[in-house]
Amino acid sequence: MNDKDFKEKLKKVKQFKIDNNERIVDLMEQLSNTGFNAKRLGRACKIYEEMILDDDCTIFFGLAGAIVPAGFQGIIHDFIESGFIDVLVTTGANITHDLAETLGYHHLQGDIDVDEINDVQLHDQNINRIYDVFLPNEVYEGIEDFISSLDIKNLEMPVSEFLKFLGEQIPDNKNSILKVCAKKNIPIFCPAFTDCGLALQLGFHYKNINLNHFKDMLKMVDLAWDAKVAGTCLVGGGVPKNFIFQSLQFCPNSAKYAIQITMDRPEQGGLSGATLKEAMSWGKVAHSAQTATIIADATIVLPIMYWYLKKVIEN
Amino acid sequence: MNDKDFKEKLKKVKQFKIDNNERIVDLMEQLSNTGFNAKRLGRACKIYEEMILDDDCTIFFGLAGAIVPAGFQGIIHDFIESGFIDVLVTTGANITHDLAETLGYHHLQGDIDVDEINDVQLHDQNINRIYDVFLPNEVYEGIEDFISSLDIKNLEMPVSEFLKFLGEQIPDNKNSILKVCAKKNIPIFCPAFTDCGLALQLGFHYKNINLNHFKDMLKMVDLAWDAKVAGTCLVGGGVPKNFIFQSLQFCPNSAKYAIQITMDRPEQGGLSGATLKEAMSWGKVAHSAQTATIIADATIVLPIMYWYLKKVIEN
Amino acid sequence: MNDKDFKEKLKKVKQFKIDNNERIVDLMEQLSNTGFNAKRLGRACKIYEEMILDDDCTIFFGLAGAIVPAGFQGIIHDFIESGFIDVLVTTGANITHDLAETLGYHHLQGDIDVDEINDVQLHDQNINRIYDVFLPNEVYEGIEDFISSLDIKNLEMPVSEFLKFLGEQIPDNKNSILKVCAKKNIPIFCPAFTDCGLALQLGFHYKNINLNHFKDMLKMVDLAWDAKVAGTCLVGGGVPKNFIFQSLQFCPNSAKYAIQITMDRPEQGGLSGATLKEAMSWGKVAHSAQTATIIADATIVLPIMYWYLKKVIEN
Amino acid sequence: MNDKDFKEKLKKVKQFKIDNNERIVDLMEQLSNTGFNAKRLGRACKIYEEMILDDDCTIFFGLAGAIVPAGFQGIIHDFIESGFIDVLVTTGANITHDLAETLGYHHLQGDIDVDEINDVQLHDQNINRIYDVFLPNEVYEGIEDFISSLDIKNLEMPVSEFLKFLGEQIPDNKNSILKVCAKKNIPIFCPAFTDCGLALQLGFHYKNINLNHFKDMLKMVDLAWDAKVAGTCLVGGGVPKNFIFQSLQFCPNSAKYAIQITMDRPEQGGLSGATLKEAMSWGKVAHSAQTATIIADATIVLPIMYWYLKKVIEN
Repeated sequence: MNDKDFKEKLKKVKQFKIDNNERIVDLMEQLSNTGFNAKRLGRACKIYEEMILDDDCTIFFGLAGAIVPAGFQGIIHDFIESGFIDVLVTTGANITHDLAETLGYHHLQGDIDVDEINDVQLHDQNINRIYDVFLPNEVYEGIEDFISSLDIKNLEMPVSEFLKFLGEQIPDNKNSILKVCAKKNIPIFCPAFTDCGLALQLGFHYKNINLNHFKDMLKMVDLAWDAKVAGTCLVGGGVPKNFIFQSLQFCPNSAKYAIQITMDRPEQGGLSGATLKEAMSWGKVAHSAQTATIIADATIVLPIMYWYLKKVIEN
Repeated sequence: MNDKDFKEKLKKVKQFKIDNNERIVDLMEQLSNTGFNAKRLGRACKIYEEMILDDDCTIFFGLAGAIVPAGFQGIIHDFIESGFIDVLVTTGANITHDLAETLGYHHLQGDIDVDEINDVQLHDQNINRIYDVFLPNEVYEGIEDFISSLDIKNLEMPVSEFLKFLGEQIPDNKNSILKVCAKKNIPIFCPAFTDCGLALQLGFHYKNINLNHFKDMLKMVDLAWDAKVAGTCLVGGGVPKNFIFQSLQFCPNSAKYAIQITMDRPEQGGLSGATLKEAMSWGKVAHSAQTATIIADATIVLPIMYWYLKKVIEN
Repeated sequence: MNDKDFKEKLKKVKQFKIDNNERIVDLMEQLSNTGFNAKRLGRACKIYEEMILDDDCTIFFGLAGAIVPAGFQGIIHDFIESGFIDVLVTTGANITHDLAETLGYHHLQGDIDVDEINDVQLHDQNINRIYDVFLPNEVYEGIEDFISSLDIKNLEMPVSEFLKFLGEQIPDNKNSILKVCAKKNIPIFCPAFTDCGLALQLGFHYKNINLNHFKDMLKMVDLAWDAKVAGTCLVGGGVPKNFIFQSLQFCPNSAKYAIQITMDRPEQGGLSGATLKEAMSWGKVAHSAQTATIIADATIVLPIMYWYLKKVIEN
Repeated sequence: MNDKDFKEKLKKVKQFKIDNNERIVDLMEQLSNTGFNAKRLGRACKIYEEMILDDDCTIFFGLAGAIVPAGFQGIIHDFIESGFIDVLVTTGANITHDLAETLGYHHLQGDIDVDEINDVQLHDQNINRIYDVFLPNEVYEGIEDFISSLDIKNLEMPVSEFLKFLGEQIPDNKNSILKVCAKKNIPIFCPAFTDCGLALQLGFHYKNINLNHFKDMLKMVDLAWDAKVAGTCLVGGGVPKNFIFQSLQFCPNSAKYAIQITMDRPEQGGLSGATLKEAMSWGKVAHSAQTATIIADATIVLPIMYWYLKKVIEN
């Protein structure tokens, strides 16, 4: 291609303005004409919209990070209720915290900018810290009581089945991820389930429990294998990202849509920060896929994306 | 303080929802009841609002990073036009790019997610890259022509005076930072002015130029010294942050409000990523100051903050 | 405390020099008199040394990140062979890659600085990319052959038992982590075992496999519970860090020594980047613990630490 | 290229070991056969070695970050004394801190891992904090006394000339950067000189001072223009990196060697974190250049590099 052709193909960066049009959908559209992470946020909104509108697409959603303690349980709930997620892969911590909130316990606000946080004092007062969020120990006692009251018929079911059972047992709640997944029959996979407070309580109370992680793994492969079209949104890295990607390798056409929202970076070589291009070498993401990586805190990005998608789907 | 008192003082993390109320002001208010960077974004909006409403407050705004190439020249323009900035400290690059856009040149969109970027090809086609933004070399020729047409009466004026003169010479423009600052008499400080393309052109054309950086430095100290109340919003780190902070040490009461939006972190010891608490040890920020640090890309945060402030001030 | 006392208590930063004394032990000692990450590297070496010399101490070592593909399988092997690790918690990926290298397959060097990496071409050539390391697909075929040749007597054993069995089956090798752990009876825990290529092969070949993750979880709690003294070195975050920490909560005295080497940061709220002080609020790390967090790539830090420890222990 | 040729061209990742050979030169050579940042550290050592051995090469060294307070003034001194740096570009802060140490003042060690840092108390005790390093205010009084004793003949000399003059005035010192540069006639450029404590004192005492920043800028362009071969090592980003790069654009062949050591990343679009490939689009770095970017804290990397270079040059 000669110089002139190349340059003429390029679009201008349009200076972003907020004038009279304050519709979130138009603002995100505008952002996609800028640069850096803002542009990729604009693009990611559009890609997610296309995933939703593509009736053949199975949307695999990876959720790492303490998103429930931070106060975004309700946003994830709404993603699921709105039909924006077909398969959820998350950490044991998010499930434990979801259960705690659903049982009526609460996370509390610390203030990292104002107070000197003194972790020794917090420990003396039986308060656990998650950055600027506090979690009193009594939450775990509540989970313990709840767990010991369960009647688990099959101690060898897959983790995803157990999580569905759990969702059915808990009270109704406008924010609960477990509950809305159970209601809408959205599978939750949690490959590192024994790495959380809920699993510890289960292990202490049910000596013979052996939830079947391999059946989950194979079911997930089947979901990817059977997907006519696959798309993924990865919030944070960790096990959820890797588990979705190892399954997508079995999807005949790899992922056609891929979004990641993370603070992790590629240079230290870990999978959490790996680019979506790297995923193409593995056949996890298709060569022709629409992709966007936003280097940003999900607590800022997820509410904006949900807001965009809500409005776009309403219309 | 005993356990019970401590816990009762703490507020709950409220799960964030976007329901029928989609007013940006209310959404940011809601965010301040969550955790992590989202909470600090909510707090930062509120702190900036208070800075604006505090009639005695001089607002020092530090702007590092390639914010103009990315497409957010217009947002900075609007911050200034709306009266949200009293003193601007920025990099030579932002001034050079502002001038380029104001003279009618444009930045172009690359696509880091889609294309393989080949920097050798770009160089062959006389295109410079700023992450996913492209800048054709012809821009610098345009700046050269403009510079050689100037009639600079005093080659030893402070940089800030020269930038005001520049703002007066350029055509009117709805996005130009130089123009709106000249119109509204907002000083622009640029301590590393010789570190940019505009300064190179000046140096090549005006052999005896010796813009007085020390007068700027002292003027800035005076501005801090005279501020009844001082507040600061730091976008990125670098020289703008340090220059504002070294001046604020001379403010009798230090900064009462301080916001920073950055991707830099404290652990490597550089000033760019230093916490606002560290700034308290130096007397740059007051002990009782309201502060918020958002670890995020400014291209995402600035539009949201502007939107919030615009609505809050309208009402 | 008054000003004078406070200042007199402080030690000077000593300017670091490499003169005639080039002994690694002395250089690390010198580093501990400086600042920033270098100082914490010096401190971490000393803390690890004390852990080793403390005969009562059980050393829990967490290993996330693609440390084997990067070429540091041998360093981890030597940590274990030298007796510097009592309990290893790692990812399925590291085990899969360890197995591949032990079976005679190799990772290959890409060059991120020199070549334009084209992931589509890599995929066409059946090469998978891990940042700047390439892994040909044939490796997985080799693992498949190996797995199908195994005679697994008990499909419900804990993962840690299976990994020991695996270590016994593989050929001897001067770098293999699985092998040296089997030989020295060092348990390997892998809570997210189904999140890796090895587990996929197991699941495909052994339809009834249900390795017991809960028994691992409880065994790990017992190890922490029984530790007279506990210490931990966390390389990267992820599941290994969390799994060690959830267990250390059950250690009567919490960890007395804690080192972490990571590129993750606290501000986004995830456990991977959480500070060791935060761990004190949970009772994972003791109030009086010796701690050091190094924000650095483990591929640089681990060889230096091993070198230091090797020399210190020899003497 | 067909598959087979491509694969055969690739080198194996060699598992790194520290056996009996503990020579730093051999260890770095070994590292260059691994992956991730360790490999790039190995490569960077080799590239720096080649720069030194290339008699035609002018080595431009950029130094941002608080490297003197952290205790690595002596290492930079030794780089210069050994002839590893031909042109130094740094921040006002590093010069101010270098002067302080040379005048007999000292930085003190805080302890970020052990103590709760209370910045309000530090301020009350007239101690300024730079992450985990403390700087008592009395240092600035010492600098003030020194400055007021100077006999500056020409208040309009370039900053680089003033810094040479300063180096001549200060006492001899085995660590001083100013001193060794003056002795060896190595120019120090400091484009943001008015952004530091030393410049503040100068401005307060010499009302008519107007050190000529533009002459520095042009002299730097000349140095790049005249370099038969250019090489650069960039420690941190900021103004030093940009100033070197804007000058290298005028080097007929661009930089043939380029190393950067930084914790900054490309995704937010700032120049500090920009890749060396991006620099090729601008003609700052040659297409065929040898390059390495290490994402790491310079306080860890610089001592290792110096050690390697010292041994390699001795032999």
